Amino acid sequence: MKDHGLSQLGRRTKEPPISWLMHATLARPNLISLAAGFTDNDTLPVSESLHLLQDLLGRRKTGEPALQYGTTVGLPDLRELTAQRLKQLDGTAAGNPRRYSADRALITHGSQQLLYMIAEVLCDPGDIVLVEDPTYFVFLGIMQSHGVRARGLRMESDGIDVGRLRQVLERLDREGELPRVKMLYLVSYSQNPTGRTTSLEKKTAALDVLRHYERKAGHPIYLLEDAAYRELGFSRNDVPSTLTAPGADDRAIYAGTYSKPFATGVRIGFGFLPDPILRATIRVKANHDFGTASLNQHLLARALRTGQYERHLVKLRRRYARKADAMMRGMRAHFPKNVRYEAPTGGMYVWAALPHSVKTGLKSPFFQRALSEDVLYVPGELCYANDPTRRKPRHETRLSFGNASLEEIEEGIARLGRVLDEVL
Amino acid sequence: MKDHGLSQLGRRTKEPPISWLMHATLARPNLISLAAGFTDNDTLPVSESLHLLQDLLGRRKTGEPALQYGTTVGLPDLRELTAQRLKQLDGTAAGNPRRYSADRALITHGSQQLLYMIAEVLCDPGDIVLVEDPTYFVFLGIMQSHGVRARGLRMESDGIDVGRLRQVLERLDREGELPRVKMLYLVSYSQNPTGRTTSLEKKTAALDVLRHYERKAGHPIYLLEDAAYRELGFSRNDVPSTLTAPGADDRAIYAGTYSKPFATGVRIGFGFLPDPILRATIRVKANHDFGTASLNQHLLARALRTGQYERHLVKLRRRYARKADAMMRGMRAHFPKNVRYEAPTGGMYVWAALPHSVKTGLKSPFFQRALSEDVLYVPGELCYANDPTRRKPRHETRLSFGNASLEEIEEGIARLGRVLDEVL
Repeated sequence: MKDHGLSQLGRRTKEPPISWLMHATLARPNLISLAAGFTDNDTLPVSESLHLLQDLLGRRKTGEPALQYGTTVGLPDLRELTAQRLKQLDGTAAGNPRRYSADRALITHGSQQLLYMIAEVLCDPGDIVLVEDPTYFVFLGIMQSHGVRARGLRMESDGIDVGRLRQVLERLDREGELPRVKMLYLVSYSQNPTGRTTSLEKKTAALDVLRHYERKAGHPIYLLEDAAYRELGFSRNDVPSTLTAPGADDRAIYAGTYSKPFATGVRIGFGFLPDPILRATIRVKANHDFGTASLNQHLLARALRTGQYERHLVKLRRRYARKADAMMRGMRAHFPKNVRYEAPTGGMYVWAALPHSVKTGLKSPFFQRALSEDVLYVPGELCYANDPTRRKPRHETRLSFGNASLEEIEEGIARLGRVLDEVL
Repeated sequence: MKDHGLSQLGRRTKEPPISWLMHATLARPNLISLAAGFTDNDTLPVSESLHLLQDLLGRRKTGEPALQYGTTVGLPDLRELTAQRLKQLDGTAAGNPRRYSADRALITHGSQQLLYMIAEVLCDPGDIVLVEDPTYFVFLGIMQSHGVRARGLRMESDGIDVGRLRQVLERLDREGELPRVKMLYLVSYSQNPTGRTTSLEKKTAALDVLRHYERKAGHPIYLLEDAAYRELGFSRNDVPSTLTAPGADDRAIYAGTYSKPFATGVRIGFGFLPDPILRATIRVKANHDFGTASLNQHLLARALRTGQYERHLVKLRRRYARKADAMMRGMRAHFPKNVRYEAPTGGMYVWAALPHSVKTGLKSPFFQRALSEDVLYVPGELCYANDPTRRKPRHETRLSFGNASLEEIEEGIARLGRVLDEVL
């Protein structure tokens, strides 16, 4: 019988490209994966979490609420600590204190769940979302699943080309498509996959441009700032968030996470949202799971309150900086001169552009050669939206130094260098 | 600007009725809530969880995977233990061993997340789902959010009236609506809200009826069995699941949970699904959160493997049986003779039907009177789908003995009795 009775969404939703990469990893025990978005194993806060949980569950008074249902919107304590932390990160630029009210915060099962729910409450099939070229590919999966179209915006070293944003919106206006445009999605800190950080100037300018086109769109066009890698900057040069930009209070949605900075196995993310979007998202969250697991929320609240979170971050940043260095050293030593890349200033990724003649896709000779040498990367083309108005670049790679050990990074890059020498 | 740019789903999704009840609870510190679906605080496995977590996080070898990302489908160990447990629960009726293969299992953030994803992969707006009259109201919220229509099926003491199921499908066939019918949803053990358990005969007969209408529907019609309260039966008289019925392998979806039987703050649910639905749901899960929090999965796997889970269950069942007794004693002592109810054999709820003349809704004099006496219940009408083909009963109440203490149950029921005496 046709389609097993699946819904349109059920039929539309594709297997994420990363699944294939995961299978490949499992099938080859000696594989060095520079593809996975997994975090560093050696710095996972095992004993730190144990101590926090011993304090939490050591008394029934604090233990019971950690094992009981909570509220849909999240643990008040964690919302408050999150608001304080965000205000502190935004520092002198913070401005309006109401902006960092715990009332604007929602706690989720990882920031991924927040991205999913934002797509649900804003986007109908056929709607359009503007994304960076390239962008976080799981977000592209959410869009594809919901039948949402995407337009890609060229990246510069400090974020999207704002002139290009204007051009794209002009063109959509001419085509009568402006009412379908719902948001601009930016991975604004040490971006996945390019490692680039968007300047506050660009975020402010982008908000301005969106606002300009709203009247013709007939509704707000939101800026969804995905700050997943914000806490993983190697230096303390933090850029203030979009929340600090003029006009952000009712247009900027901030998605943050404690997963990557603390422990991915605990999966706590959060959002700061303008009121109507917050209310709609809470209603949807009530249907998803009526609230994030209390145990995980209480653990994170304790990590924040005791300073354990901050201490762990210092260690983690140092670790990733060292791994990034190792990858850079390897690339300088082993990669041909015509491969272009930038030294990351945070996050877990290096983006490398090979000469245009070398394709990097899953079926390309380069990918297959690398695989037979037991080294895996993410083909750059997976990070580009299906945007019919431009051609997808096919000669790039995302290399992750998140999960691989220092030795694996060194060896993996050396192997990739050999394969590059062969194909070039 | 209109609708803040919300999607159809965003605009459609209503605040769950239970939110209002939660607000009412917070606003009245002396309130006795017989409304909440919260579980018993005194039996929450605080020290048990601590010991399991000490073993888990006491060594880096076992601690690291618990704090790292896992796979989308769930921890292999927990899937395997879940499969074994389900097979054991189904006992001699289990039959076909492939049915209990860990490959058919998916681990989720509570069974609520599974229900949500099943709705997503099966239902388009305008589709129809068949539900019990009354049923679990959060499931009705998911339906409403997705624009799905519902038809209610009269309940008998051992589950839905199967004759009525046939009549409803006949009528839908005459109306040309059969192709919109996607599934039958049954809360089959100690049902929320009636406390009734569906017999295997009824589950088998329902599957047969659904299969009969499939050809005209043009696609499979699934039976979604929500077994949330299965482990909370007071006696060991467990009814085998729908999975044991002939023809269930490609039509029955089983939703189970470790939340209520172990700890609601840990939020681990699971599903056993026919292959095409499993694959579609995993793809959707990858977009939701690419996998359930590892820490919670490792904790549950340990609870199951060590027997801690089973030992806890014995305690929990005894506790709820005692609370159910207290509620029954109170109702016999304080409720007028013309209030009808059944003694629960499991779960957390007693369903009481007042004389038809007494309305129980949020705005009714009875509800308001009860509230002014600081006692809260769930109005029965919230548990009925919006089905235009029948009238909603408005004289029933759901009384929960899950979270209230023995003293609160006694006092709450006495107060409700006084209010009943006044209004009758």
